[in-house]
Amino acid sequence: MPQGKVERVPDDGLTTRQRRRSPLLAVHTGIGKGKSTAAFGMALRAWNTGWPIVVFQFVKSPKWRVGEESALRALGEHHAATGQGAPVTWHKMGEGWSWLARPGDERDHAAEAAEGWAQIKRDLAAQRYRFYVLDEFTYPMKWGWVDVADVVKTLVDRPGTQHVVVTGRDAAPELVEAADLVTEMSKVKHPMDAGRKGQQGIEW
Amino acid sequence: MPQGKVERVPDDGLTTRQRRRSPLLAVHTGIGKGKSTAAFGMALRAWNTGWPIVVFQFVKSPKWRVGEESALRALGEHHAATGQGAPVTWHKMGEGWSWLARPGDERDHAAEAAEGWAQIKRDLAAQRYRFYVLDEFTYPMKWGWVDVADVVKTLVDRPGTQHVVVTGRDAAPELVEAADLVTEMSKVKHPMDAGRKGQQGIEW
Repeated sequence: MPQGKVERVPDDGLTTRQRRRSPLLAVHTGIGKGKSTAAFGMALRAWNTGWPIVVFQFVKSPKWRVGEESALRALGEHHAATGQGAPVTWHKMGEGWSWLARPGDERDHAAEAAEGWAQIKRDLAAQRYRFYVLDEFTYPMKWGWVDVADVVKTLVDRPGTQHVVVTGRDAAPELVEAADLVTEMSKVKHPMDAGRKGQQGIEW
Repeated sequence: MPQGKVERVPDDGLTTRQRRRSPLLAVHTGIGKGKSTAAFGMALRAWNTGWPIVVFQFVKSPKWRVGEESALRALGEHHAATGQGAPVTWHKMGEGWSWLARPGDERDHAAEAAEGWAQIKRDLAAQRYRFYVLDEFTYPMKWGWVDVADVVKTLVDRPGTQHVVVTGRDAAPELVEAADLVTEMSKVKHPMDAGRKGQQGIEW
């Protein structure tokens, strides 16, 4: 329950109004559930504010995120039909990035991830969207498929008012240091511990 | 990244298919961001699965959750127009519960919260919805406005396949004990620590 009170007024020469409009770099990390889910929940607010949304999904399984993708695409359709909200763009690494002409199934994952990051850089430079979900992007960073220093510099130096949320376990310390908002999701109890498998509507 | 592997097969006499369909009681607690946001993200999956959704919002500020409410209501409208997804119902304590004929502004909060809980009990008994978000419901429990033992017994004994997510800080130990999935959101870094106030599109 945010109280709207700040602990101190920063000495950064900005007005409250300027600070309020500062674009946010958020990181959702930790081993618990809810990292991506909370990012998609944030996207609901962005959508309602009229900010064009893009999702880059750095996972390979076609099953994951199908519910979120379907619902967010429906919000994009609702925007096209009624003008409410904002457009929604969704890119999936697992199916080959949609802006590439040739299929991705013969390519290696590292090259695919690097291509995803290259597209994010182009979109940020062009200020193409206002709200970016870089889903499970900590993994290609961890595995050395994209350069951490390049990611951090690009995100910190991004132009305009583009909000970025990065999700995934084991966020790089440099990314955490650069972020404005970092939340760690910890597992207290999970149904798989009790021998229950994932189910539609809950896990995807 | 769920691997779909369980640590042990439970000795509960159920088949995997039955366990997979077991209704979930989830709790999102802790002082970090993302508790409610992740619950609304989960609602996207429920919506896509065709589960009727209801939100009971136990907070008083009219500003909070406006983005999530607007987007989820839009998904409900999209369902009405296209048949995709599921209907969405949203109840707010702060404006007086919508099923009450008389306005709520002369009532005390404890009575309002108790009325909200009474309606949840009726809806659960009638199996009116498939996915319930009881947003910030830990607070009326903490403040003694609703009886913790009654809440836990009602949720544990709820009929059918109704999924329930409870959000808020300081979840009662009995509720955590009864839940299938508990995630604690911890604050690592928050922009208010740096003197930034909340902004539209991010906080609401």
